[in-house]
Amino acid sequence: MGDPASTHWLITLVCVDQPGIVHAISGAIVEAGGNITESQQFASLDTGRFFMRVQVESQTDRKTLEAKLAPVASRFKMQLILDVVGRPVRTLVLASRVGHCLSDLLYRKSAGQLQVEIPLILSNHPQLKELADFHKVPFELIPIRDDDGMTQFESRLLGLVEELDIELVVLARFMRIFSSKTCEKLAGRMINIHHSFLPGFKGANPYRQAHSRGVKLIGATAHFVTEDLDEGPIIEQNVVRVSHARSPEELRVIGQNEESRTLSQAVNWFAQHRVLLDGKRTIIFS
Amino acid sequence: MGDPASTHWLITLVCVDQPGIVHAISGAIVEAGGNITESQQFASLDTGRFFMRVQVESQTDRKTLEAKLAPVASRFKMQLILDVVGRPVRTLVLASRVGHCLSDLLYRKSAGQLQVEIPLILSNHPQLKELADFHKVPFELIPIRDDDGMTQFESRLLGLVEELDIELVVLARFMRIFSSKTCEKLAGRMINIHHSFLPGFKGANPYRQAHSRGVKLIGATAHFVTEDLDEGPIIEQNVVRVSHARSPEELRVIGQNEESRTLSQAVNWFAQHRVLLDGKRTIIFS
Amino acid sequence: MGDPASTHWLITLVCVDQPGIVHAISGAIVEAGGNITESQQFASLDTGRFFMRVQVESQTDRKTLEAKLAPVASRFKMQLILDVVGRPVRTLVLASRVGHCLSDLLYRKSAGQLQVEIPLILSNHPQLKELADFHKVPFELIPIRDDDGMTQFESRLLGLVEELDIELVVLARFMRIFSSKTCEKLAGRMINIHHSFLPGFKGANPYRQAHSRGVKLIGATAHFVTEDLDEGPIIEQNVVRVSHARSPEELRVIGQNEESRTLSQAVNWFAQHRVLLDGKRTIIFS
Amino acid sequence: MGDPASTHWLITLVCVDQPGIVHAISGAIVEAGGNITESQQFASLDTGRFFMRVQVESQTDRKTLEAKLAPVASRFKMQLILDVVGRPVRTLVLASRVGHCLSDLLYRKSAGQLQVEIPLILSNHPQLKELADFHKVPFELIPIRDDDGMTQFESRLLGLVEELDIELVVLARFMRIFSSKTCEKLAGRMINIHHSFLPGFKGANPYRQAHSRGVKLIGATAHFVTEDLDEGPIIEQNVVRVSHARSPEELRVIGQNEESRTLSQAVNWFAQHRVLLDGKRTIIFS
Repeated sequence: MGDPASTHWLITLVCVDQPGIVHAISGAIVEAGGNITESQQFASLDTGRFFMRVQVESQTDRKTLEAKLAPVASRFKMQLILDVVGRPVRTLVLASRVGHCLSDLLYRKSAGQLQVEIPLILSNHPQLKELADFHKVPFELIPIRDDDGMTQFESRLLGLVEELDIELVVLARFMRIFSSKTCEKLAGRMINIHHSFLPGFKGANPYRQAHSRGVKLIGATAHFVTEDLDEGPIIEQNVVRVSHARSPEELRVIGQNEESRTLSQAVNWFAQHRVLLDGKRTIIFS
Repeated sequence: MGDPASTHWLITLVCVDQPGIVHAISGAIVEAGGNITESQQFASLDTGRFFMRVQVESQTDRKTLEAKLAPVASRFKMQLILDVVGRPVRTLVLASRVGHCLSDLLYRKSAGQLQVEIPLILSNHPQLKELADFHKVPFELIPIRDDDGMTQFESRLLGLVEELDIELVVLARFMRIFSSKTCEKLAGRMINIHHSFLPGFKGANPYRQAHSRGVKLIGATAHFVTEDLDEGPIIEQNVVRVSHARSPEELRVIGQNEESRTLSQAVNWFAQHRVLLDGKRTIIFS
Repeated sequence: MGDPASTHWLITLVCVDQPGIVHAISGAIVEAGGNITESQQFASLDTGRFFMRVQVESQTDRKTLEAKLAPVASRFKMQLILDVVGRPVRTLVLASRVGHCLSDLLYRKSAGQLQVEIPLILSNHPQLKELADFHKVPFELIPIRDDDGMTQFESRLLGLVEELDIELVVLARFMRIFSSKTCEKLAGRMINIHHSFLPGFKGANPYRQAHSRGVKLIGATAHFVTEDLDEGPIIEQNVVRVSHARSPEELRVIGQNEESRTLSQAVNWFAQHRVLLDGKRTIIFS
Repeated sequence: MGDPASTHWLITLVCVDQPGIVHAISGAIVEAGGNITESQQFASLDTGRFFMRVQVESQTDRKTLEAKLAPVASRFKMQLILDVVGRPVRTLVLASRVGHCLSDLLYRKSAGQLQVEIPLILSNHPQLKELADFHKVPFELIPIRDDDGMTQFESRLLGLVEELDIELVVLARFMRIFSSKTCEKLAGRMINIHHSFLPGFKGANPYRQAHSRGVKLIGATAHFVTEDLDEGPIIEQNVVRVSHARSPEELRVIGQNEESRTLSQAVNWFAQHRVLLDGKRTIIFS
C-alpha cells in the first residue's frame, strides 16, 4: 500500500512461551536500526502462549524490517504483524435503528479520537442515514424481512469485507444474530456491544428485569462475536451506579451511555493492535 | 429501654401510596413540637407503596411523639418505626474461617464508623477467635460437622436472636446455607455478602471462572438472605477494574476488598434505617 | 404560557429553616387535590436555610395550585417556583472553536436525553456552524477582536437573554471572561465547564502541567459563573484515571470526554430544577 | 542475605534511552538461562530516560545472574536493581494518633496482601500501641514536645533506618514536617498520604473548607516526601463522590477510607519495585 513517511512501527506477536523471544526480537530491531519506544508482553499461564506488542522508531523501510524479523518469526513459529503506528483501520459499521453507538463512533472519528476509517455503514433500517450523511460516510440499506433477507445481508457483508479490504466489523447496536459461517469468517475481527448487569439477565427487556431486581449497577460489555451469543472474549467493560428511583426508561438511557463509550474504547484498542486473543480471553495492552 | 438525652428522632414508614401522607405525618411532627431536619420519600410504581424516612429534632419524649404519630399510622395503615438517631443496632455476626469481612466490620466499629453493637460473634470454626478477642467481642464456637450440626447451629442462632434482642444478623463470609424456616424467621434482617461478576458465574471457584473468561470487572453484592440463594433483595454493589495479568489468587484478594467495604456499607445503612424493602427490591435512602 | 395537558407539577422552595414548613406545603398540595410523588429536602446548617423540591400529581390547573401555595409562600417568606415536570428549559449556548461539549449537548438533546430547547447558539468563531446546521439549531456569529468586541458580544448576549426568554446560558467551552455586570445579571443561571486536577493547576496549558506533575486522575468541574473565575458554586465533578504513559495530548482528549459528560449532566439537573444555591454551595437533588 | 529457594527474579533499571537496551538486557537473561515472564518499559519524552521492570524465571543463583547483568549495566550506565520476587520490604511505619491508615496496613500485612515486614512502628503518641500489640509489631514512643523533640525524633528515625536495614519509611498519618536533611536522606523511600480535593485547599481543616465549597469529590494522594510539603512525586490517587448532605465530620470519615486504601496500594507497589522516579513524576508499572 505504500507506507507513509512515518518512522514509527508497530509489531505484535504471539507464540509458544520459551526463553529467548525478547532477546531475538529486540536483536532484529537493533539490526534494523530501530529503537523500542513502547513494549508490553504477557505470558499466559492458561495456554502457555507468549504475547508481545512493541513500538519501534526507525528510519528503515518496511522491506528491511520484514527481512530482519522474518527469521525470528519463523524460528519461534510466531504469528507476527508489522504495521505503521497510527494507520487508520478499515472498519465497516453495522447499524439498525438505535443511534447512540453509531453517533459516538462518528463523532470521535471526526474529532480525531478514533483511529479508523469507515468506508461504509451497512444497515437493515433507514433511520440512521441522516446521521451518516452529516458525517459524509456512505450508507447502504439492506432491509431484512425474513431468514432469506438475513442470508442476503450476510452474503453482502462478507462480500463487502472482501471488496473494501475491511479489517474490522463493528456491530453498533445491530440486533441480528449471525450464522456460524459468518462468525467463523469474521472471528477475532467482529466486535459487538451489549448491556451488562450484576447479576446478568437473559431474555427480553433486560432494563425492566434489572429494575424489578433493584440492581445498583448497570453497565456494558464489548466483546468479539462468536457463535455463542454474548459469550465471546470480553474486550472492555464499564458500569455506573444507579438508584432505586430510576425508571426502566432512565436505566436504558444510562445504559446506552455506557454502551457508547465502551464500544468506542474497544474499537480504538483494536485499531491500535492492543487486543490479542488468548483462547477465550483477551490480552489488552492498554 | 429509656432513650438517651438525644432530641433527634428517626421515623420510617411504609404504606399504600395516596394523597395526604406527608401532610398528615408532618402535622403530627409539628404538634409534637418537632422540626424535620432530613426527609426522603419514594413512591413505588411497581408496588403502589409509599416509603418515607424522616429525621426530627424535638425536645419531646417518646411517649408524646408516639401518641401524636399513632392516629396517623392507624389511618394510613402504616408500618411505622420510631427510633433515636445514632442508636447502635444490636448485631449478631456469623463467621467461618475467612476474616476479611469480620476484620473490616470490627475495625470500623472501633473507629466509630459503624452504628452497631455486637454482643456476640457466632462461628463454626475457631480461626477468628483471636481477632474477636482483640476487639473484646465475645466469640462462640459451634462446629458444624453434618446436617445435624447445622440444625443445632440454626437452633442456637434463633435462640440467640431472642435472648440477645438481636436486630440484625450479618453473614461475614459465613458459608453455610440456611433452612427455609431460618430464612423466613430472619427475613429482612439477615444480610449476606457475595462476589459478583459480569457476567455472573454459578458453581465452585468463581474467581477461577472469572479468570478463564477474562472479565475486566469484579465486585461484590450485599443482599438480604432469602431461600433462593444469592437472589435476595440487593442492598449495595461495588466493582473494580482488573487486567488480564491478574491471577485467580489476585482476583480473590481484590474481590475480598470489595466484599469488605460493600458489606460494611450495607450494614451501616441498615443500622440507620436507610434500607426499606419493596417486594424484591430495596429502597436505599442513602 | 398555557401549560400542556400534563398533570405533573414541580415545586422548589427556599426559606429560613423552621418547624412546620413541610406540613404547610403538603397541606396546600392536599387542598389542591395533589399527591406528592417525589420529594427531597435539605436543611443547611451552614446558612440556616431550608430547601425543598417536590413533584406533585394533580388534575388541578396552575391558577388553583398557585392560589393554594401563595399564602404558604408568603407566611414563610419562601422563594417558590412552580413548573411543569419535563418542560424544556430555554437555553442559550455560547461556543467558540472547540466542539466536544457542544456536540455532546446537541446529540443528547436530539436523543431526548436533555430537557432543554436551544433557540440559538452564539459564537465568536465560525467553526461550529456546520455542527449547528446538522442539528438545525440557529447559529449567530459575533467575532471578538478586542475589548470593544467583547463589550458588544456581552451586550448582544444580555439582549438575547431578554428577547428569547432565556432561562439558562451554557458556556460550552466558551473561553472569554465576562464583566462583573454580566456575571451579576446572569448569576445562578450561567453554567461553565472547566478541567480539574488533583492538585489544581493555574495558568496556561493545564494538561502539560498535569503531565509534568504525573497526576493519576484528571477530571472536569461544572459550576455557576461568578466574578471569581472558576470559583463559582460547583454543580458536578467527574474524574478518570490516567497512567504515566499518557501524553499531554492524550490527557487533553480524556479530559474533554469528562468535560462533555459533566457539563451535560449539570445542564440536565438545572433544567429539572435539581440545582439550588446555598451561598457558595449547591444543593443537588439528583 | 542468602536468597530463598525461589527461582523468580526481579530486575528494574533506569538509564538514558538509546537503541539496544532491551536486546542487551534480554541477552544477559538468556545467557543466565532465564525466561522473561513479565516485562514493562517506558521511555520518557520529558527526561529522555528509559525505565524497565522485568521478572525472570531462572534456576541460576544470584552471583551468576549478577555476573551476566553487570557488563550491560556498566555499558548503558544503568541504575540496576536485582531482587527476588515476593521478598518483603523492610518498612518502618511512623504514626501519631489517628489509626485508620496504620490499621489498614497491619490488617493487609496479616492477611498476606502487603509485601512488607515491619520491624518497628515509631510514634510520637502512645494511642496506637494497643493496635501494634495486637499485631505483634514492636512499638517505640518518642514524644515530641518542641523543636528539640522533633530534632531528636528525626535523629532516632535516621538511626533506626540504618540499624534496622529499613528500605521504606511510611507516614501513616504522621503529622509532622521533616527537615530538609531528613527529606534528602530518605528521598525516594519515604511515602506520605494526604487528603485531596477538587479544587485543592491549603491550610487547616480541609474537610471544613471542602464542605463550605460544596465539593462533589474527595480523595487521597500518596506521594514521596520532598521538602516542598505535599508536592512530592505522586504515586497513587483515589476519589469518591460525596453529596451536599455530608457534614464535615462525615467527609472526614469518607476521606480516611480513601487515605487508607490509597496508602496501602502505594506501599505495595513500592515493595514490588513498581514505582520508579522520573524527575518530579513517577512511572508506575502496575
